[in-house]
Amino acid sequence: MPTLVLIRHGQSAWNLENRFTGWWDVDVTEKGAAEAKAAGELMAAKGLDFDMTFTSFQTRAIKTLNLALEAMGRLWLPTEKHWRLNERHYGGLTGLDKAETAAKHGDEQVKIWRRSFDIPPPASEPGGDYDLANDRRYHGIPIPQAESLKDTIARVLPYWEERIAPSLRSGQRILISAHGNSLRALVKHLSGIGDDEIVHLEIPTGQPIVYQLDADLREVERYYLSER
Amino acid sequence: MPTLVLIRHGQSAWNLENRFTGWWDVDVTEKGAAEAKAAGELMAAKGLDFDMTFTSFQTRAIKTLNLALEAMGRLWLPTEKHWRLNERHYGGLTGLDKAETAAKHGDEQVKIWRRSFDIPPPASEPGGDYDLANDRRYHGIPIPQAESLKDTIARVLPYWEERIAPSLRSGQRILISAHGNSLRALVKHLSGIGDDEIVHLEIPTGQPIVYQLDADLREVERYYLSER
Repeated sequence: MPTLVLIRHGQSAWNLENRFTGWWDVDVTEKGAAEAKAAGELMAAKGLDFDMTFTSFQTRAIKTLNLALEAMGRLWLPTEKHWRLNERHYGGLTGLDKAETAAKHGDEQVKIWRRSFDIPPPASEPGGDYDLANDRRYHGIPIPQAESLKDTIARVLPYWEERIAPSLRSGQRILISAHGNSLRALVKHLSGIGDDEIVHLEIPTGQPIVYQLDADLREVERYYLSER
Repeated sequence: MPTLVLIRHGQSAWNLENRFTGWWDVDVTEKGAAEAKAAGELMAAKGLDFDMTFTSFQTRAIKTLNLALEAMGRLWLPTEKHWRLNERHYGGLTGLDKAETAAKHGDEQVKIWRRSFDIPPPASEPGGDYDLANDRRYHGIPIPQAESLKDTIARVLPYWEERIAPSLRSGQRILISAHGNSLRALVKHLSGIGDDEIVHLEIPTGQPIVYQLDADLREVERYYLSER
């Protein structure tokens, strides 16, 4: 049975400050690094092992992967990094904290952006503080102006189908280190969760989520490794 | 002109203790980690940038690469890890310090093993403390029993030809994080250094070595980045 483990990056500086981060490249905190290391130690202690690893283009997810792999003695495993595993792009909300956002746009509107499936936040400002147009890593990549969860899913799943699913089908054991919403995209797909429900699924930082999948790569079992 | 940068891993625990390390997976020291970070900061300050990175299967080289890339804001660059970039395999000398080796084999003999081009040290003991036969990372890989520098070169160069040279020819700027002897193999090849001379070339830890190469991928210029 194919084994897949998902891990959301350890706490980032902006998780801590409660700011919308999205594609902005915020580092993990010391606590976040410790979470990543502990996740690796837990996976090793529980006898999990991998053949291939995937992560996003974002430092917090890459470092979480590297710290977990190092704790497992598996830093030598191959890793593929791809922008399609990036966090949801929060557009014009990027960098704002909850209070600022509510003051600017109203509580009701913020709730809609956070909890609706298909309503994107306002587009990011070209040339603004968080414009990524001149970030070399996204050269040639269609940087979103803002994404709903639906938009995020639409760009995560082609990568799943093209790169990750074939690895699993070939018998590889896979670890993916990514973000709250790119992981929601995968969990929705693998576990068949509805549009209304997936927006409420909270994925904790630094907690390995283990999937046992069937031959069609759908959930047979899903659990937090810390609970076994 | 193709640009290539070579970096030997930062100081490892056994560099410090003066023990033969070879394929044994020894971590970098705090000083070694600081060297790696400083190398990344230096490369960024000097305006160096990369499209592709390569490293060995060994933690000290992988961590050196990751720490340097992080300091450059380039952790998202692709990395290929391969055993052919590993350190020279020191066979039965693995784990011994200089004094132990001299006591066991005599000063003259140790000098021969350290400084000859084509005389390998004694083979490692199967089932000994440093046997890698059960290390998952080398499953399916022809683990050497012991290597001369000549042997090391013979397994590094096919990887150069197959993976690294084509990247350079396609215009990619390349960073390689590896080991004293796998880097000697590359320097000998790129700079046309003789057998007798290459054994005396010392490659310092954590110092980026910059190559400007011609269209045949031979040295036009080679220098320590810290000296420019």
